[in-house]
Amino acid sequence: MAKTSKNSGLSGFPEWLPAERLVEQHVIDVFREVAELHGFSGIETRAVEPLDQLLRKGEVDKEVYVLRRLHAEEGSADAGADPARTLGLHFDLTVPLARYVLERQNDLVFPLRRFQIQKVWRGERPQDGRFREFYQADLDVIGQDTLPGHIEAEVAVVMAEILDRLPLPPFTIHANTRRLSEGFFRSLGLEDHTAVLRSLDKLPKIGADKVRDLLLAETGATPEQAQACLDFAGIRTRDASFADTVRELGGSGEMVEEGIAELTAVLERVEAVVPGVILADLSIARGLDYYTGTVFETFISGHESLGSVCSGGRYDSLAADNRHTYPGVGLSIGLSRLVSRMLSADLARATRAVPTCVLVSVADEEARHLSDDAARGLRARGISCEVAPTAAKFGKQIRYADRRGIPFVWFPGEAGEHGEVKDIRSGEQSVADPTSWEPPVEDRTVQVVAASPTQG
Amino acid sequence: MAKTSKNSGLSGFPEWLPAERLVEQHVIDVFREVAELHGFSGIETRAVEPLDQLLRKGEVDKEVYVLRRLHAEEGSADAGADPARTLGLHFDLTVPLARYVLERQNDLVFPLRRFQIQKVWRGERPQDGRFREFYQADLDVIGQDTLPGHIEAEVAVVMAEILDRLPLPPFTIHANTRRLSEGFFRSLGLEDHTAVLRSLDKLPKIGADKVRDLLLAETGATPEQAQACLDFAGIRTRDASFADTVRELGGSGEMVEEGIAELTAVLERVEAVVPGVILADLSIARGLDYYTGTVFETFISGHESLGSVCSGGRYDSLAADNRHTYPGVGLSIGLSRLVSRMLSADLARATRAVPTCVLVSVADEEARHLSDDAARGLRARGISCEVAPTAAKFGKQIRYADRRGIPFVWFPGEAGEHGEVKDIRSGEQSVADPTSWEPPVEDRTVQVVAASPTQG
Repeated sequence: MAKTSKNSGLSGFPEWLPAERLVEQHVIDVFREVAELHGFSGIETRAVEPLDQLLRKGEVDKEVYVLRRLHAEEGSADAGADPARTLGLHFDLTVPLARYVLERQNDLVFPLRRFQIQKVWRGERPQDGRFREFYQADLDVIGQDTLPGHIEAEVAVVMAEILDRLPLPPFTIHANTRRLSEGFFRSLGLEDHTAVLRSLDKLPKIGADKVRDLLLAETGATPEQAQACLDFAGIRTRDASFADTVRELGGSGEMVEEGIAELTAVLERVEAVVPGVILADLSIARGLDYYTGTVFETFISGHESLGSVCSGGRYDSLAADNRHTYPGVGLSIGLSRLVSRMLSADLARATRAVPTCVLVSVADEEARHLSDDAARGLRARGISCEVAPTAAKFGKQIRYADRRGIPFVWFPGEAGEHGEVKDIRSGEQSVADPTSWEPPVEDRTVQVVAASPTQG
Repeated sequence: MAKTSKNSGLSGFPEWLPAERLVEQHVIDVFREVAELHGFSGIETRAVEPLDQLLRKGEVDKEVYVLRRLHAEEGSADAGADPARTLGLHFDLTVPLARYVLERQNDLVFPLRRFQIQKVWRGERPQDGRFREFYQADLDVIGQDTLPGHIEAEVAVVMAEILDRLPLPPFTIHANTRRLSEGFFRSLGLEDHTAVLRSLDKLPKIGADKVRDLLLAETGATPEQAQACLDFAGIRTRDASFADTVRELGGSGEMVEEGIAELTAVLERVEAVVPGVILADLSIARGLDYYTGTVFETFISGHESLGSVCSGGRYDSLAADNRHTYPGVGLSIGLSRLVSRMLSADLARATRAVPTCVLVSVADEEARHLSDDAARGLRARGISCEVAPTAAKFGKQIRYADRRGIPFVWFPGEAGEHGEVKDIRSGEQSVADPTSWEPPVEDRTVQVVAASPTQG
């Protein structure tokens, strides 16, 4: 995988070579496998939504790709005149989920456990490794009117299991909860907790001294209160010991204790399944405006510059109508961004470039049926193989297998007789029966494994 | 699956309920599994292509969805002024493949064996069950400059194997070949073979008498020649006996014999793998303009009105540049259309609506960790389970499992003790250890199976 895919085409629209696509497919497969193991149902929604739905939140309006039919008549719905009837490509999987849940509420059983892996589009400038077309992989539990708090820990467990199965360097899931932050700031006497959060959110960018200035200027905090907030945001523990520090800093009251219980439950449940990945990080502020419970961000060791590769949390209203409100807990992996880094930094590679395990050689075109028979015997047991395209000299057929990355070449015997199989890596060759021969288990199917990362 | 998905949203943009999506996912999985077993590599291309590329073939220009960034400046590339820089959504996977092959020719090994399963978009009126957004599943072998003829049979074998593994009524792959038709018409003395093909192509619509008139009027055929053409187009055989009839009708010469050999090879190779599905059908004319070798159309018994669900064949130039020409053999399944019929006609159904095999009940919230432990034991062996969202009365938890379609409910024991598992269909309940209990093999994972078709 030294040769990384050149973005020879449109900037911001990634395309992979077959061996690279195997890595992306593996990430998708793992996400789906773990999600299904936890009883999540896969859904897909259409790629388009009415423009007025896409623009409801306002903040991303510049990013939307609007569609029109090439030959639509001027002024018709397809020509983009009416925002309720004009279609745009979805820019995330949350807006579509909200619509889907409302439309299908009578056909769905709640809490709905759904995962969704689809491409989304954003018209923003393709700089800083941002894509205009990319896969997002979402997983949410959606309740009807109510959703128990323990679901927050459950979703974190699924997230941890997915990431743990991927060939990635060590990762850390940073968790915080709205109740703990808000409760702490309130128990200090700072009522404008969102202003405090907004200030603390700038810590990674402007540093503690400037955040202190902000806290003093914009939240009415005393120097002592500001320091307590900074100390609070500095708390990072792998276990429940964050609670004592919060209390020592002056955190008290029902909301703080609820937040502590919530976050402790998340730490303990994730730790029980995937040890050493969850971290209470009380500096996580981003999204606490939108999220109403636990919030998560995930960073990969040595690749912090990527930003959070998997984020999410609890929100109190995905959607609502006259009858019901739909609260949820969700996480989302920026899958293309993650895969792109896995490829460009050589974090993972496919053990071979093609699914094929065996190239069945052809002695001459008259005898191609013998090769077909051997291939059929192998495939019947799930061993991927292809038959050589031409009856070239065996040396040439072996080189063809080598160029494609196929590890074994089969030489069929006469009808009813065994053939021979050669491991073209070792050169070892032996008599073998296509109806019973087994490749080494690591060669049976192409696998995606951790690679040695490149320097720099 | 009696309740079919209502198209509650935008006409032409299908969306499935979770249990329906399981059927679609199954079709995708089978396609991928068989393709990989035959050494095909999966690729994906971006959803967009420059408009001038999409319009090169001219015929589908009305169907293209054009993109513009909502806030693109007037006259900028994103505003859609310049066809070379304006983007449209792809309407098939062939135009993108041609571009991909040219762009990546130095990184690919030929013959390239690729499959591609992606959504495509067409802005046409969503009538007659046509969709505006739908999955296409393509499989092609692309050569560089040359591609051996036997690949045509090989692709037909893969097609047959894919369809054979799907829960469908009997299907028939109709095959014909350009050389045989052209050679036959020429050996009759009819040089304008495309005019003959065009006339014969109308057989299903206007019938033999009117086609005879066309042949007389537009191809210069004598009544005897016209009759020979109609007789030729009436040939349908499961085996190589079509050849004798062709010869009896006056077919002779090198091209006819080549065509016979080609079609016979396809029949024999498909018959050897999936008996009883391949049919020589010399009336298949559609696409013989574009295709240069064997051509395939596939019909499902009792669902002929769907049209061909899987079509393809040999073409001599997918793409070309100054150095190379890329011939190919390909097939394409209109996957959404097929799945839509499978669902609406009750041809297939998922054995349950969710991936979940076991609902682990919760006696009280204090004991939720015991349920988590049991679930972990089951999941460690690949058994999908979820833990009850609330510690409601057991009866309510069982009803919850029933509504979701989960077959088993687990009652965890105290720490270190076995629990009990209830099959809620039979009511049978027994002591079981979550680290070793096995569900019946048919319940272990959700499966997609043939359903009894509904009447009418």
